[in-house]
Amino acid sequence: MKFVEKLLKISSKNDSLLCVGLDTDLNKIPKLLLEKKDPIFEFNKKIIDVTFDLVCAYKPNMAFYEAHGSKGWESLEKTCKYIPQNIPIIIDAKRGDIGNTAKMYAQTFFEKLKADGITLSPYMGQDAVLPFLEYKDKCAFILCLTSNVGAEDFQFLESQGESLYIKVAKKVISWNKDKNCGLVVGATAAEQLKKIREIAADLPILIPGIGAQGGDLKMAVKFGTDRYGNLAIINSSRSILYASNGEDFALKAREEAKKLKKEINLYREK
Amino acid sequence: MKFVEKLLKISSKNDSLLCVGLDTDLNKIPKLLLEKKDPIFEFNKKIIDVTFDLVCAYKPNMAFYEAHGSKGWESLEKTCKYIPQNIPIIIDAKRGDIGNTAKMYAQTFFEKLKADGITLSPYMGQDAVLPFLEYKDKCAFILCLTSNVGAEDFQFLESQGESLYIKVAKKVISWNKDKNCGLVVGATAAEQLKKIREIAADLPILIPGIGAQGGDLKMAVKFGTDRYGNLAIINSSRSILYASNGEDFALKAREEAKKLKKEINLYREK
Repeated sequence: MKFVEKLLKISSKNDSLLCVGLDTDLNKIPKLLLEKKDPIFEFNKKIIDVTFDLVCAYKPNMAFYEAHGSKGWESLEKTCKYIPQNIPIIIDAKRGDIGNTAKMYAQTFFEKLKADGITLSPYMGQDAVLPFLEYKDKCAFILCLTSNVGAEDFQFLESQGESLYIKVAKKVISWNKDKNCGLVVGATAAEQLKKIREIAADLPILIPGIGAQGGDLKMAVKFGTDRYGNLAIINSSRSILYASNGEDFALKAREEAKKLKKEINLYREK
Repeated sequence: MKFVEKLLKISSKNDSLLCVGLDTDLNKIPKLLLEKKDPIFEFNKKIIDVTFDLVCAYKPNMAFYEAHGSKGWESLEKTCKYIPQNIPIIIDAKRGDIGNTAKMYAQTFFEKLKADGITLSPYMGQDAVLPFLEYKDKCAFILCLTSNVGAEDFQFLESQGESLYIKVAKKVISWNKDKNCGLVVGATAAEQLKKIREIAADLPILIPGIGAQGGDLKMAVKFGTDRYGNLAIINSSRSILYASNGEDFALKAREEAKKLKKEINLYREK
């Protein structure tokens, strides 16, 4: 099944565009979990248990797992296995390397971890992305416009009358022959998101920057969704995961996810 | 000790600009090692044993370790520990993410693995690099011009009369207040390498693309080194690691490394 099809299915079943970012940080999870053998997995398990009927995807952030070396990898593997098979897993890895190396990464994320999508950096161009595109049922999400201050440094540079991020969006569309490309666009850039969605009418767009980063949710939903009110994957991590750090953390995470899902749907034009 | 100082010290001691890339691939290492408990580490150990007096740095490529999940991490950790402390370790990870995540990566690579340098993608701009620059004795090598075909897609785009890769080089120089920035420039682009070295007179430049990728060694050395014939880190991976896949693999790897080191020095203006 194509990634987009899988996404639309669960999105419709759960009536949701919400993606929960699994940026699981040992310093922020409830103390009571630290006694467990694998606190990161235990935490993720609880978060998944209380959100699986509210989301359209999960997005584990590689940095938080790599920080714990081989133990972190085990937590990530267990987490990916635990996520229900009908919910897409997008690994936030922002990789980008030449053919040979990219091929290894693609194998790792798509075959070993059985992820459905991955985030990639565009800087090295097409041959850094191609090995991922050989997996026709997966999805490569290319960084287009990011939600951080540093986005100004290069992404807005004008070339031949177009900003670099627009060039990136157009290139990605030209790589999308098998309908397995997506874009990453920060929620903090509403006007630009609108422009990108106009160009990339049929691509899934992963939108981080909601919540802790202060992006405007209404604009993100309005401009990020396609003409059917779909294909925007609106990510929130910290505001859900750490809604509480007490015993009620799972309950509070569910409440927060429910609230956010509802708010997103309020702005959706279906 | 500053990274550049450490690099110059070992470079002078071993009279070498050669970096051995540890792209260790289970499919390519001698079959006789596959019976060992940790074949990747056993292979690296042997390679290090026969090259530590010939190199100025080692560059493990993350993809090859991540491909084996938690076991791969263990091999990498053991490899980093085994490399003599006076030889810089540059992790080829090509990461690039926002502040919070970048901070986690910096901790992982600089504190946990005790690497001396890391390769980073410039696309997300300064705040994706800053957390690495807080480590004043380490080095962040930013992708400037890469050795693959896809480099054409974005790196050569002209903006305000300058190519993107020149913009990147100039930005990196402005970030180099603590002398802990470097650049990555492929050996396949001699003319551009010359231009970059003229701008970045004092930065270490990591130069992959020698050997299997067919870059011109003479040009890479001539244009990549600084005015004292230093600060170019010329990487070769496959041509050394897999010089033989028989029992004599270590011997052949040493011969190949020695030959390459000598050839590099032939072109060096000291």
